[in-house]
Amino acid sequence: MEREGPLFPYFDFCMPDALWEEKTWEKAERKMLKFVIDRAAKKAGLNLKDIDAIVAGDLLNQIISSSFAARDFNMCFLGQYGACSTMSQSLIVGGAFVEGGHFKNVACAASSHFATAERQYRFPLELGCQRPPTAQRTVTGAGCTILTQNKSHIKINGGTIGKVTDWNISDANNMGAVMAPAAADTIYRHLKNTDTSPNDYDYIVTGDLGFFGKELCSEILKKDYSLNIDSVHIDCGCEIYTKDMDVDSGGSGCGCSASVFNGYLLKKMKNKEITKILLVATGAMLSLTTALQNETIPGIAHAVEIERLS
Amino acid sequence: MEREGPLFPYFDFCMPDALWEEKTWEKAERKMLKFVIDRAAKKAGLNLKDIDAIVAGDLLNQIISSSFAARDFNMCFLGQYGACSTMSQSLIVGGAFVEGGHFKNVACAASSHFATAERQYRFPLELGCQRPPTAQRTVTGAGCTILTQNKSHIKINGGTIGKVTDWNISDANNMGAVMAPAAADTIYRHLKNTDTSPNDYDYIVTGDLGFFGKELCSEILKKDYSLNIDSVHIDCGCEIYTKDMDVDSGGSGCGCSASVFNGYLLKKMKNKEITKILLVATGAMLSLTTALQNETIPGIAHAVEIERLS
Repeated sequence: MEREGPLFPYFDFCMPDALWEEKTWEKAERKMLKFVIDRAAKKAGLNLKDIDAIVAGDLLNQIISSSFAARDFNMCFLGQYGACSTMSQSLIVGGAFVEGGHFKNVACAASSHFATAERQYRFPLELGCQRPPTAQRTVTGAGCTILTQNKSHIKINGGTIGKVTDWNISDANNMGAVMAPAAADTIYRHLKNTDTSPNDYDYIVTGDLGFFGKELCSEILKKDYSLNIDSVHIDCGCEIYTKDMDVDSGGSGCGCSASVFNGYLLKKMKNKEITKILLVATGAMLSLTTALQNETIPGIAHAVEIERLS
Repeated sequence: MEREGPLFPYFDFCMPDALWEEKTWEKAERKMLKFVIDRAAKKAGLNLKDIDAIVAGDLLNQIISSSFAARDFNMCFLGQYGACSTMSQSLIVGGAFVEGGHFKNVACAASSHFATAERQYRFPLELGCQRPPTAQRTVTGAGCTILTQNKSHIKINGGTIGKVTDWNISDANNMGAVMAPAAADTIYRHLKNTDTSPNDYDYIVTGDLGFFGKELCSEILKKDYSLNIDSVHIDCGCEIYTKDMDVDSGGSGCGCSASVFNGYLLKKMKNKEITKILLVATGAMLSLTTALQNETIPGIAHAVEIERLS
């Protein structure tokens, strides 16, 4: 599906199929993460032994994609869980360690896989369940950013860590509505704390609100925060697929913002097409256990401000 | 069980039972985390609104104890997953943000609950499965440390982030053997990088290796690293229970090192009984999915060096 989407030309590599020569989808997801960490290091001109640490996460229980991928690298590992907000969370955490001088080079990564997520969070794929229009398709994708103390044309200016918000939504097929309030809160706080306005950014990029959630986020920002970001607002979940594809409300998953940010947006920055973005990856704290115990689904969103130096 | 153990007098509070007036064990675990964050803030002389962020994790899928606890606090949240190594992982991550000046006060917390862990990772309690002698009992406990830029008598000198190690063990009832090599590697690297020897510490405190794993760790250190830490080596999983209790190889879980460190060791530091410790919380990346897919269990251990200033 990601191959058929409009961003395909930007991606470094596309797997031939969902299994990628592995026996299970979970093993394939792990292989994806290992691939992007290795590839990102090479593209940064670094040997793997120069990478001090991996800061990564994914959607699977016990973040097995990340921890089992890290097993094959001789690097320090800090496992993150922020649901689909993991890409920006890992950039924030990795950034603090690089800025603080604790590490020279850190690999920040995230992944998701449609088939592993669907069978863990919803139904076996074999059931062929119908999905409502607000459902989103978990992106099969992974991305890795290398943060370095070496000279670079692109830097992280700072970020805003999200708060866990809950608007009492319990529909596991409406993650956009869960995450939109969290995204709005984080975007508002970031702009206020940095004294910037939407026009200071080429894009404010939400993670994976999807078509429905993106609209909702825009509405919340206007109504509750008197803030209009429409002119610069794009959403990774809306960019990676088109509306006419069979993806309901668009893309989701850690791999959505990870692949769109690393594959598409960073390339546009390198090509000097854009200068400054605010990446606001968004996560829904969906859990089978809490759903069965009549809980609602909280959301979170972390913002990272990334700029190209002239 | 924790009430019957030798450290009971050190703990701030002991729940009356495993449910603590909640409908489910999972809700009780969440209540424990909320309780320790609130209590730790009060003991640090801070209002909750002075705490900028929560850095926390637990053993449950999607770290629901931490994220749902964070929902009830108006604070930034960074979810961590390092299995039972989470207490030291959260201290390392929280410490980087406080040292870097990004936050003034950060709550670092972790929890585990025997009943929630047992039914998620192993068998329903109602089955009454027999356990082998290498099995450990997940501690029902939680702990929180407030890291602050304010003046304090106790500080974190630094830490060593763990690498994911795998010695090809696939027995879910032998977590000590999974974590011992990881602990040995991290202890060795920390002592080497800081140019210290075991005698520079009052205690080198492994997280939850248990009776069997502690011995194994000691053996690995001697054989593979020519390092003898026996005179200062204690293990939270061996301290919290006694051998004559029905706990097989001792305690485990994020809550083991979290409660022993925050309840017992920090109090001994405050009372000037000890000056410097190396806390090496240890985690086993146990997962139902990977176990079913014939994978072994990797381990990780993070070390934090904590010192009392005169």
